Amino acid sequence: MKDTSSNSSAKKNAGYKAAEYVEDGMVLGLGTGSTTHFFIEKVGMRIKEEGINVMGIPTSFQSLLIAKQWNIPITTLEEHDIDLSVDGADEVDSDFNLIKGGGAAHTKEKIVDYAADKFIVIVDESKVVDELGNFPVPVEVLPDASRMVIKELEDMGASCEIRMAQRKDGPVITDNGNFVIDAKFDKIESPAHLEIDLNAIPGVVENGIFSQMVDKVIIGTDDGTKEL
Amino acid sequence: MKDTSSNSSAKKNAGYKAAEYVEDGMVLGLGTGSTTHFFIEKVGMRIKEEGINVMGIPTSFQSLLIAKQWNIPITTLEEHDIDLSVDGADEVDSDFNLIKGGGAAHTKEKIVDYAADKFIVIVDESKVVDELGNFPVPVEVLPDASRMVIKELEDMGASCEIRMAQRKDGPVITDNGNFVIDAKFDKIESPAHLEIDLNAIPGVVENGIFSQMVDKVIIGTDDGTKEL
Repeated sequence: MKDTSSNSSAKKNAGYKAAEYVEDGMVLGLGTGSTTHFFIEKVGMRIKEEGINVMGIPTSFQSLLIAKQWNIPITTLEEHDIDLSVDGADEVDSDFNLIKGGGAAHTKEKIVDYAADKFIVIVDESKVVDELGNFPVPVEVLPDASRMVIKELEDMGASCEIRMAQRKDGPVITDNGNFVIDAKFDKIESPAHLEIDLNAIPGVVENGIFSQMVDKVIIGTDDGTKEL
Repeated sequence: MKDTSSNSSAKKNAGYKAAEYVEDGMVLGLGTGSTTHFFIEKVGMRIKEEGINVMGIPTSFQSLLIAKQWNIPITTLEEHDIDLSVDGADEVDSDFNLIKGGGAAHTKEKIVDYAADKFIVIVDESKVVDELGNFPVPVEVLPDASRMVIKELEDMGASCEIRMAQRKDGPVITDNGNFVIDAKFDKIESPAHLEIDLNAIPGVVENGIFSQMVDKVIIGTDDGTKEL
């Protein structure tokens, strides 16, 4: 699952930098995706090399599997609150609004990231935008509701596609057993309002807009990081 | 979802030929995949052009969506028995044993194909083999059981991979919410025994070997079909 794309070093710089904010005794939210992969890896190295004591709450099967690889003790939201959550994003604007869900993990990510005392977003520079909306908004829906939800989203001005899988036939199924509709809006004027409006549609489980949740953004570049 | 690969005309020939076996009043099992796509399409055409009266029981979200496109009335195994099921395969041997599940739909496919009075398999020539096993056996497992199931499969001589997704992060999730382990055996001497042995492992939902179920195989070629 290692990222081999050209911006892999930028992702690694961002992920490794975020791991510096991890302190002994913390419960961590473990985001999903290629940038967060590097964060989890570095936390694993710190456990091994420095002997710090932390636990992780994964946001996906992917982050669970990576955490297990690095021998990070796993726990759940039933058992622990979260001190720090670190997660990637598909887009981040200057007000720290996000679009997430390119990896179809945004529902559990939002639960975990929202529960954290502190939420750090890690991205490479390509994810930083003036205004959200070039990336479609991923909307996780109950399969039975998908046709009706698409009608509602189209009424709201979005053009929609049910995301299709590539290593199975038919739609992508999320870790929760649902579909993802990629909803492309012409313009997202208020991410906070759109986030609320989307979740108000019956059948929508969660959407990929994360507004007013982020404490810090770490932007990885080829030779270092910048923080916002 | 149309198949644009080089053997697309062979798949189309097989799928369209199978639709000739559909009779007025039948309840059909609708398999999954690029070859079966053509079968469902042709059934839809026959409904439109000849006014035949049939109903379909889909084996996946994919085949449900295609059937809806073609206005094929949908029903369920709760309501009806199946007269004829038509489905593709990843491998078929001369004894009509199959490996299925490249599209991760083999659990529902086996339920539906097994329930059918008659089961026709449609493939292009590349799927016809002397002995099963070049294609790994897809094994659908409950996510919580995956590590233990992999240990059992390795004891049985398979090398295993959890199938990873490409338009979501982490593993492929089936329409039933489970993982797929692709289990590569050196040699499959008895498909019928392996099918039973795999399903005996706790946590295994269903495996992709279909033995002793097939009534007819239609092989599509570039310019026609052959029947076995």
